Amino acid sequence: MSGSVLTKSAGALYASRLARVRQSMKSQSIDAALLSVGHDLPYLTGYYAMPLERLTMLVVTHDAVAALIVPRLEAPRVTPFDDVFKVVPWGETENPVEIVAKQLGGAKRIAIGDQMWARFLVELMGFVSGVNFVRAVDVVGSMRMAKDVDEIAALQAAGAAADRVATQLQAGEIKLVGRTEAQVSADISARLIAEGHDVVNFAIVAAGENAASPHHHAGSRVIKHDEIVLCDFGGTMNGYCSDITRCVFIGEPSRKITSAYSVLHAAQAAGVAAGVVGATCESVDAAARKVIDDAGFGDFFIHRTGHGIGMEAHEEPYMVSGNKLLIAAGHAFSVEPGIYLPGKWGMRLEDIVVATDAGPLSMNNVDHSLAILN
Amino acid sequence: MSGSVLTKSAGALYASRLARVRQSMKSQSIDAALLSVGHDLPYLTGYYAMPLERLTMLVVTHDAVAALIVPRLEAPRVTPFDDVFKVVPWGETENPVEIVAKQLGGAKRIAIGDQMWARFLVELMGFVSGVNFVRAVDVVGSMRMAKDVDEIAALQAAGAAADRVATQLQAGEIKLVGRTEAQVSADISARLIAEGHDVVNFAIVAAGENAASPHHHAGSRVIKHDEIVLCDFGGTMNGYCSDITRCVFIGEPSRKITSAYSVLHAAQAAGVAAGVVGATCESVDAAARKVIDDAGFGDFFIHRTGHGIGMEAHEEPYMVSGNKLLIAAGHAFSVEPGIYLPGKWGMRLEDIVVATDAGPLSMNNVDHSLAILN
Repeated sequence: MSGSVLTKSAGALYASRLARVRQSMKSQSIDAALLSVGHDLPYLTGYYAMPLERLTMLVVTHDAVAALIVPRLEAPRVTPFDDVFKVVPWGETENPVEIVAKQLGGAKRIAIGDQMWARFLVELMGFVSGVNFVRAVDVVGSMRMAKDVDEIAALQAAGAAADRVATQLQAGEIKLVGRTEAQVSADISARLIAEGHDVVNFAIVAAGENAASPHHHAGSRVIKHDEIVLCDFGGTMNGYCSDITRCVFIGEPSRKITSAYSVLHAAQAAGVAAGVVGATCESVDAAARKVIDDAGFGDFFIHRTGHGIGMEAHEEPYMVSGNKLLIAAGHAFSVEPGIYLPGKWGMRLEDIVVATDAGPLSMNNVDHSLAILN
Repeated sequence: MSGSVLTKSAGALYASRLARVRQSMKSQSIDAALLSVGHDLPYLTGYYAMPLERLTMLVVTHDAVAALIVPRLEAPRVTPFDDVFKVVPWGETENPVEIVAKQLGGAKRIAIGDQMWARFLVELMGFVSGVNFVRAVDVVGSMRMAKDVDEIAALQAAGAAADRVATQLQAGEIKLVGRTEAQVSADISARLIAEGHDVVNFAIVAAGENAASPHHHAGSRVIKHDEIVLCDFGGTMNGYCSDITRCVFIGEPSRKITSAYSVLHAAQAAGVAAGVVGATCESVDAAARKVIDDAGFGDFFIHRTGHGIGMEAHEEPYMVSGNKLLIAAGHAFSVEPGIYLPGKWGMRLEDIVVATDAGPLSMNNVDHSLAILN
């Protein structure tokens, strides 16, 4: 993992973020926050914990300096910021959960990082009592949602790199016919890295009837003429994620396909246009869904319209019915409606969009039409 | 992820494993087990859940058929085994935690999978009360530890594939001098795949003073003449993991290095020899550590001697002081002592070993000496 793109000194950035976390904790009467694997930890400290059975945890309370409890073995990987947190390495024969419990100072309302391994929470319950646990997304999530200028620049750079791969796909530079989905997925992955990504997070390649399964795992299916190929790929570049979906058709698409794609295209544009500051998240979903519903494909759009994106490929806010959260400047999210005909074909169109005071700003600007290849 | 190597029908295997889980739950008065991301779920159902904000969870109780709560979007990826579990897909606007809570039937003692995202446990606490949570490793862990004949065969195949890459390293076929650690790491990763692995889990390459950090992240450091290079790599093949560490020295090692390596070599052999059925896990650690202690390097062996391995790269049992668990036939674990001189050099030697009634069986059989290259 690489660090994020930063214009101000990292230490000052982390200190100011941590101050805001404590403010948010205070306003919600939260005594302590425990952040382990996942992205809240690097957001606040710059440190990415390995997802290991050996516990890493940042303990944030109001009165003491934040403590990063870390396996002694991993301690050399921590870049220290003395004004932000102290490093507390633990040895192989110590119980790190007990060490965490001791740092809690009698906290009665504790926020827990979303992706912490549940085993550590179960173990912690053996050391504390009468505690009310809440999700740390309530204190860190709203901060992480509203991207600052450096973070938006990082999303733009990652989006531009993904766009270059999508352009190669649309130009026919990525051989499709006769190769398996898995081979094309590997090819796209290599191109994401060549264009500057540090890690590939996924590269879905789904041909023909496989495209009807939105999270299809690229497999041994050989791509043929006269079918649609859905490609949904993204990675992490300088700490921030890309995510794009484009479809190509090899041969001459039927009228059914072209007319469904027109609906999809219009639905995606409507979703993007609805992503304005002050609108609810669910209104983005509703805007895209209405176009698809009106065209009679409503039963075939079987997922939410989008997810937030940033340090994580999927994070808050989610563009889904029922989410009344108001979009704020700096919120970054995907707009990716789809139409899926089981056993026949599927199609999806996805851009990453950042809400700004000047309107929705797209991180992906490559052609939105169904590319026709031969 | 691929399925495991199976000689009996998968459905029958999962059914018998689930029956044993229920037996173990009964003997511990556990009313329900909740298994989400991690490897308990595929061990019992064949299904690998994506680590997503969308909940996937197997609910195991005594009286009802097990229920696999899965996002509707992911449901096509599930291979159903009707005699083992029912699939319960949930839609984008439903609350899956509420669905899980409804399946619990008033359970008061609930076992939680180790790697479940803590957010789901926190959310579940809002739907149940007076519940005592325990770790699911207490019910599934002991089963997963004792590998059956098919699982041992899979570990052997993965170990042999890793050995082939280690042989290439020792034979000087992997260019080292003048390349960065990261380049060599990528080369080793490609070779692991070429030799049959489905996924690379890690490929640590640490040169000179970097080798003194056991979990060093391969970086831009260029490898030079006259230094030690520590390579620790492994992946997953047919659902089971490999993990091996070998060191090479480019040039003529000093007497200090060669004599320290002799100590390491003897320590590793002592650890392997101690890994017999009926011994405690901590005795494996003690056996390796004693050799290093006696030679005066005790302060420089800064981690436990080993970890269990199977579907996961790290799993129970751990070879660490304080672990009184008795080794049983089929237990698979690493034996990997190391000596680390901060700022100077480090060395580690690692094999995977399976305890059998006929004694310790090594999954890695490539030369154990410090390979000298020029």
